[in-house]
Amino acid sequence: MRNTGNRIQCDALRSKITDADTAAAFITSGSTVGLSGFTGSGYPKAVPLALAARIDAEHVAGNPFRVRVWTGASTGPELDGALAKADGIEFRLPYNSDPIAREKINRGEMEYFDMHLSQVAPMAWQGFLGPLDTAVVEVSGIRADGSLIPSSSVGNNKTWLDRASKVILEVNRWQNPALEGMHDIYYGTALPPHRVPIPLIRPDDRIGEAYLRCDPAKILAIVETDAPDRNLPFAAPDAAAHQIAGHLIEFFRHEVAKGRLPASLLPLQSGVGNIANAVLSGLVGGPFEDMTSYTEVIQDGMLDLLDSGKLRMASATAFSLSPQAAARLNADMGRYREKMILRPQEISNHPELIRRLGCLAMNGLIEADIYGNVNSTHIMGSRIQNGIGGSGDFARNAYVSIFMTPSTAKGGKISAIVPQASHVDHITQDVQVLVTEQGLADLRGLSPKQRAAVIIANCAHPDYRPALADYYRRALIGSYGQQSPSLPGEALSWHQRFIDTGTMRR
Amino acid sequence: MRNTGNRIQCDALRSKITDADTAAAFITSGSTVGLSGFTGSGYPKAVPLALAARIDAEHVAGNPFRVRVWTGASTGPELDGALAKADGIEFRLPYNSDPIAREKINRGEMEYFDMHLSQVAPMAWQGFLGPLDTAVVEVSGIRADGSLIPSSSVGNNKTWLDRASKVILEVNRWQNPALEGMHDIYYGTALPPHRVPIPLIRPDDRIGEAYLRCDPAKILAIVETDAPDRNLPFAAPDAAAHQIAGHLIEFFRHEVAKGRLPASLLPLQSGVGNIANAVLSGLVGGPFEDMTSYTEVIQDGMLDLLDSGKLRMASATAFSLSPQAAARLNADMGRYREKMILRPQEISNHPELIRRLGCLAMNGLIEADIYGNVNSTHIMGSRIQNGIGGSGDFARNAYVSIFMTPSTAKGGKISAIVPQASHVDHITQDVQVLVTEQGLADLRGLSPKQRAAVIIANCAHPDYRPALADYYRRALIGSYGQQSPSLPGEALSWHQRFIDTGTMRR
Repeated sequence: MRNTGNRIQCDALRSKITDADTAAAFITSGSTVGLSGFTGSGYPKAVPLALAARIDAEHVAGNPFRVRVWTGASTGPELDGALAKADGIEFRLPYNSDPIAREKINRGEMEYFDMHLSQVAPMAWQGFLGPLDTAVVEVSGIRADGSLIPSSSVGNNKTWLDRASKVILEVNRWQNPALEGMHDIYYGTALPPHRVPIPLIRPDDRIGEAYLRCDPAKILAIVETDAPDRNLPFAAPDAAAHQIAGHLIEFFRHEVAKGRLPASLLPLQSGVGNIANAVLSGLVGGPFEDMTSYTEVIQDGMLDLLDSGKLRMASATAFSLSPQAAARLNADMGRYREKMILRPQEISNHPELIRRLGCLAMNGLIEADIYGNVNSTHIMGSRIQNGIGGSGDFARNAYVSIFMTPSTAKGGKISAIVPQASHVDHITQDVQVLVTEQGLADLRGLSPKQRAAVIIANCAHPDYRPALADYYRRALIGSYGQQSPSLPGEALSWHQRFIDTGTMRR
Repeated sequence: MRNTGNRIQCDALRSKITDADTAAAFITSGSTVGLSGFTGSGYPKAVPLALAARIDAEHVAGNPFRVRVWTGASTGPELDGALAKADGIEFRLPYNSDPIAREKINRGEMEYFDMHLSQVAPMAWQGFLGPLDTAVVEVSGIRADGSLIPSSSVGNNKTWLDRASKVILEVNRWQNPALEGMHDIYYGTALPPHRVPIPLIRPDDRIGEAYLRCDPAKILAIVETDAPDRNLPFAAPDAAAHQIAGHLIEFFRHEVAKGRLPASLLPLQSGVGNIANAVLSGLVGGPFEDMTSYTEVIQDGMLDLLDSGKLRMASATAFSLSPQAAARLNADMGRYREKMILRPQEISNHPELIRRLGCLAMNGLIEADIYGNVNSTHIMGSRIQNGIGGSGDFARNAYVSIFMTPSTAKGGKISAIVPQASHVDHITQDVQVLVTEQGLADLRGLSPKQRAAVIIANCAHPDYRPALADYYRRALIGSYGQQSPSLPGEALSWHQRFIDTGTMRR
């Protein structure tokens, strides 16, 4: 407990303070609940647990009880985990990384609608997703005028608070009070024909307000909590991650030398994880100064880069930090706050802004095929891992769209480069640079056949390279057409072999 | 010949008037040529023919001669056809519909880089495509101050004129002089970090100039022509097209009734062809008034809709008309000009603007799978038809993204609905409504399994429905994961069967 001061400064709202069970009772079976939370930060930690307990009790009593769950992106075990375990989720959008929910989805027990993260808020406004009954939103405080101090993620909170008929707030004392002022909530969005240009020109522009608005008449319950975000231990980058980072930094250096990128690069977008952290760490030692970031999530490596002085500022919609990095951030929040902006995900991921800023998009993948179609979501074409997240928002609109992966997975039993992707999230047009520990393929301006030659030579693991080259050689002879040669009867046989035998190797 | 007046009003440039052979001699083997032209309008008609003749002569003499060809989109037989026939194209971007060039590509004799049409100009500026040596641009006149009156398409002409070291102009007297004033050339684009919001808020906003600028020092040759655009005869919509149009108009009516679309709809984007024309014709008899269009191409049906008074205005980058419609347009250009704006394709297809305006995107396809992944480009996964064109620009950013197709092709031997798309251009997230003559599937907000049920039931042809249902039923049992059930060993077997036997039927 960091701060015992009163986080609820609005007298009119103090009467709404209650316990989580009472709050959860406002949520009815079959209703749609919009919850805060993005990559394990800023999600409500008490009401979903109480709701899960209530659902368990109803199920024991033989009563059906499930809800439709909307969030920002992934949350934590107290939300997705608990509700999934209670069999309480009928339908889920827009992103999930919870292992229990993932299993339910992949057993066919939960419907999952995997969306571009920038589109969630506008589509919620469009109306075809149906009404939003209840918003459950974590905040770090309530001001005297009733405005809300956002928490460690912004996500879709503005939209949930605007759209829901009923609002439940969790005020989390664990969140640093110095978060106040870091956020930038843009209230200028609208449905067409009333949309106007979004007036953001640089990653450090502030175009909105530091607080969330909410009609006090809709607030039915306020629950006080004191619980940490799901901050996962930092996994140190392995050798492959460092090799990937090395190839990529060399590419940036080359592009700067050619005059195709400014010396301070362009705003960095970086996915989460091991490889992304290795790239960010690599940039600490790199030659680029005065960099900026316009991305979804601020992770450990981003903090290092800020500390190094090489990253001038970072714009995102959420934190995704290890416990150590979260402690570092919290110990010095006043200083970090000057270099960080958290925005609604509709803005952090907005195609208009990504294209305008010219982001350098760096994302991971599950597999890429020899033409550079990328599968980010479905293992063996059918089993969802997490979801597309913001990768489509960034890849399609980036200045350079980069995808990175080790060349094999599962101890070499899976090749990340395959004859044909078993599912496609990013089409060849949106995949410009592909990097594995083996090397980097600069695919810009290449025809499919030119891409295949470079991907097989530069990115595939040597153990799989001969089989890929053999497939491609035979496709060049036997294919129906020669724009993107393929053998449909064989194109997905590597996946079938893995399913049948546990390895893609012959 | 419509106008014998002098189209070249700039004295300083008159000395550059020459014949096509002399002009073509400025183009060297191995160089990159940026030509005007978009969907068969506004392409140069004399210099490419002269270049093709020169290439033929060089080849007869045993000398290699090929060029790299960049255009707006498709052109005409005097350009792509002639150069491809002469074996003169080494590399081609960003779109092709010429049958001779298509055959060369599908025999592996020409490299083809199929791009999002909105990205051509910015990527040409980025530099990785290499330098642009020569621009060959058709205009309808040259003004006294040297500014250029654009022709019947704008395409990438601004960028070609800006980027090329050498410029060759064709001044085509066939083009209606009353085109003058219809164009809106926006000169506010830049590379990041210098990009700013594009100040277009409504489809009828004019944000630029009516003329193209060109440094006169770069203009090496001006060739006068008097030749029509490639205006293809209008193919009257068949019964299937009318059924598709009926389903779609019923959907719009329903959305308006639900309050999810304004009574005047939202700006229409419409692909070219039979079905698109049927939809536009259907709207002539529909209940929607005061409509607008923000699209790539103005086609016959759009003219009908303008004449009906129901379409207030149309914004595009080119015309694509039948000879009859072109005659109608030319006979009354002064009046039509007030209701039409032709823009650079970078603006007509700009993601920022499509998302802001909230376009209703209506595009054709080759095949869709049971999850609604759409293949727009590759027959049997490998043989290119035309290219992705602007469909990705519109589908990803549309307010409602609609894809339309007859449920079968080749007299029933090909099902447009397949277990798995053999190539993916539009991922499920970007395909919201699927329409065949069988019916309409509103896929918005549905999980993959929910989508499969609706697509099989509403869109598949009855002859193929049982086999699709059977595949899906078995995938629900045997799939590796249940988010998007699939059987990789069988998923592309329909395509292999067609290749082997000439039909997808068992």
